[in-house]
Amino acid sequence: MLSDPIKKFSDLFSKLPSIGPRQAIRLAFHITTLGNAKIRELADSIDGLSKMATCANCFSIYHAHHEGKNICEICLNEHRRKDIIAIVEKETDLISLERTKKFNGRYLVIGNLQKTGILDSEQKLRLNSLKKFINKDLNGKSAEIIIAFNPTTYGDLNAAMLASELKNFTEKITRLGRGIPTGGEIEFADEETLEQSIDRRI
Amino acid sequence: MLSDPIKKFSDLFSKLPSIGPRQAIRLAFHITTLGNAKIRELADSIDGLSKMATCANCFSIYHAHHEGKNICEICLNEHRRKDIIAIVEKETDLISLERTKKFNGRYLVIGNLQKTGILDSEQKLRLNSLKKFINKDLNGKSAEIIIAFNPTTYGDLNAAMLASELKNFTEKITRLGRGIPTGGEIEFADEETLEQSIDRRI
Repeated sequence: MLSDPIKKFSDLFSKLPSIGPRQAIRLAFHITTLGNAKIRELADSIDGLSKMATCANCFSIYHAHHEGKNICEICLNEHRRKDIIAIVEKETDLISLERTKKFNGRYLVIGNLQKTGILDSEQKLRLNSLKKFINKDLNGKSAEIIIAFNPTTYGDLNAAMLASELKNFTEKITRLGRGIPTGGEIEFADEETLEQSIDRRI
Repeated sequence: MLSDPIKKFSDLFSKLPSIGPRQAIRLAFHITTLGNAKIRELADSIDGLSKMATCANCFSIYHAHHEGKNICEICLNEHRRKDIIAIVEKETDLISLERTKKFNGRYLVIGNLQKTGILDSEQKLRLNSLKKFINKDLNGKSAEIIIAFNPTTYGDLNAAMLASELKNFTEKITRLGRGIPTGGEIEFADEETLEQSIDRRI
């Protein structure tokens, strides 16, 4: 019943994470009403994503302005410490940390974590790449590894597993501080957060 | 903090209905991982939507294969009755009704309804276009107008308003039947549905 362009669009877009088939069809019809110039702009913005590349060092996705190098701007930045490494689950976590301007080290993007705490083959490859870097460029020890995973059950599980994998490669392993978020209310904080906020009072 | 192509994509896509800013950023990063061929395919599928046009007769969005005509295939189909008209809110409702293969008339797509029951200027234009068609092609009276709106408060309100607007242009005004949906359970049906199912028992 759906005409070809609508079907084509909704088939492809409904395969993307968090877009359902109905939403894809509604989006398709909505986009047709935007006019050709806007449609072109949307298509171009998708084309633009092919300019993104994965950094061979930290595995973050970055805008590859120049051919060749294969290394992102954070890793190329000589003003950043290369012996302090934050391990994050995904790009959006990296972006959030960068926004704080509080971290002057490098990153490793490990990719979506499993609830089981087991790394897939791609993640093992990334972890080995970090170990090789520490061995080669840092004489076998980094100053600090911050395991910056979400403070959730599976985040904690994965963090514990990574910490034991990396304990011989770093002076110090840390995680992000826990407590009541700014603007949060004690009354509504869960018990674990409140316990942490007492243990780590400032 | 976001690199240009990611920002460009997420700015545009987060303006589409039902896509939030965070979802747009996650989508952008996900799409970058799909590889250039897939990225091209997604961009092309958006470009394809510019081939859709609005039917000058029923205002549905259709695939404009041929230049010029401006009329959709349903309206062009001589085997369909033109004196029975279903008024729907949106294309997806039209598609759902077509899937039943139970309706052999024409449509009018009126566009998203207001909760106030008031038609906007575009909707008034569409309604007037229907009245003109009835006057010119049907000698002032259609056999039946089915107001196929959702059985919700605002759907009912809009239907009542349209019915009074159109009462002189048609022999009969109907709405879609109401009752317990197939597979539904009496225990979980709301009171109004249950009342309707008794009133309109079959």
